[in-house]
Amino acid sequence: MESIIEISNNIKNFCVILFEPQYPENIGAAARACKNMGITKLISVRPLNPDKERMLKMATHESAELIEAMPVFDTLEEAAKDFNYIVGTTARTGRQRGPYFTPREIAANLAPLSQDNKVGILFGSERTGLTNHELRLCQDIIHIPTAEFTSINLAQSVMIVCYEIFLAQAKIEYPTQRLATTIEKEGMFEHIEELLIKIDFILPENPEHWMRSIRQFFGKLDIKAKEIKLIRGFCRQLLWAIEGKPDEKKGSTSS
Amino acid sequence: MESIIEISNNIKNFCVILFEPQYPENIGAAARACKNMGITKLISVRPLNPDKERMLKMATHESAELIEAMPVFDTLEEAAKDFNYIVGTTARTGRQRGPYFTPREIAANLAPLSQDNKVGILFGSERTGLTNHELRLCQDIIHIPTAEFTSINLAQSVMIVCYEIFLAQAKIEYPTQRLATTIEKEGMFEHIEELLIKIDFILPENPEHWMRSIRQFFGKLDIKAKEIKLIRGFCRQLLWAIEGKPDEKKGSTSS
Repeated sequence: MESIIEISNNIKNFCVILFEPQYPENIGAAARACKNMGITKLISVRPLNPDKERMLKMATHESAELIEAMPVFDTLEEAAKDFNYIVGTTARTGRQRGPYFTPREIAANLAPLSQDNKVGILFGSERTGLTNHELRLCQDIIHIPTAEFTSINLAQSVMIVCYEIFLAQAKIEYPTQRLATTIEKEGMFEHIEELLIKIDFILPENPEHWMRSIRQFFGKLDIKAKEIKLIRGFCRQLLWAIEGKPDEKKGSTSS
Repeated sequence: MESIIEISNNIKNFCVILFEPQYPENIGAAARACKNMGITKLISVRPLNPDKERMLKMATHESAELIEAMPVFDTLEEAAKDFNYIVGTTARTGRQRGPYFTPREIAANLAPLSQDNKVGILFGSERTGLTNHELRLCQDIIHIPTAEFTSINLAQSVMIVCYEIFLAQAKIEYPTQRLATTIEKEGMFEHIEELLIKIDFILPENPEHWMRSIRQFFGKLDIKAKEIKLIRGFCRQLLWAIEGKPDEKKGSTSS
């Protein structure tokens, strides 16, 4: 089974809006984070230093297109005018600003809403974040939970929010390995028992004691079918080495 | 209600290990990400350029202590020797490397395990990531899901994994606002109806038609108790302005 990562088409309706970003490196790093997470639109409002070369260095080649195509606005009102829904982000959580939500909560809410609506995710400047003036244009506010040190780098904040949006929009399945069945495990235990009796590690008339420990040990392991094959191949080869009794194929673990 | 973020003490058992990081800025940014997410231990193995000044610039003052205290090892084996559990990270997902898991799955598994065990989270270099040689020391492998552009900046990867570990270790409650009760909403509708009749917007003998629309509109809103107060204050003041009938306190929205 291959990895499956299927992204909803709705991801196209998301756009990251950087309001007064101070450092071109952060714009570039934000572009890269967006691209990693399938968000292909980036807007900025009054960037302090629009040095494209410094942006591109951090964006890397693969997300350069977001920088090249980035609209730059003079006011947030202008930047915001075509969005149906805007979510702001804040590190400050005074009572007056709430209610605010975790990125995960917002990402879940946005999943259905983004089907027919353009959604902007708004981030403030590195120095001051968003003021209440900018937040008034937002329908929801995200606060990224942190430990005591609350100041997250701008591009890191963009990454966390985009990552949560991506996860809420994607179906993700990684390949797993099949667990062994009972009959496969019993075959392995018989093989192990045969070996342990052969080397006089356990007595043929009373194998239960040690075999119970061995069963407990393997029981904890969530042992996979292919691991059973490896262990039985090892037992077979050891028996062969001890007895000189040739198995059909020497060294094979695949039978 | 205040925000509640309670972090489990187990977070102290986590450590980020950077294997052959190329850029001191990434080490600094990784330190800051760790500190944001409550992880206070950082180790590096053979950093290509151990320029502490460049690290500290990105770490910021608040996470400088992670850089100042950072042990630097010559081999991964040495760095790894006291850990009970090591999780590697990879962007490459060949069949031979699996099984691998999402950061969220691993963070959930590590929550109980970190109570009595030292857990290392291992990240490879920006250029090559971790090879199978380093991954052999790992008990689990994380693959961060992405869109087509899979190459995540090192410090961004550290942030995503630390963020998931933090969320799995923390109890987070943001303040919410109480929804209005039925009686509060009915009081508001009566107030609105009185106003709309007064201005001849609806007929007193048949108010149902418009009131139904108004009920539907407010019904969608998950209207809060404090919003009801605002609306009723507004109705009261309008009635006063139209009729010249003085309410007890002019302009108040808080009664």
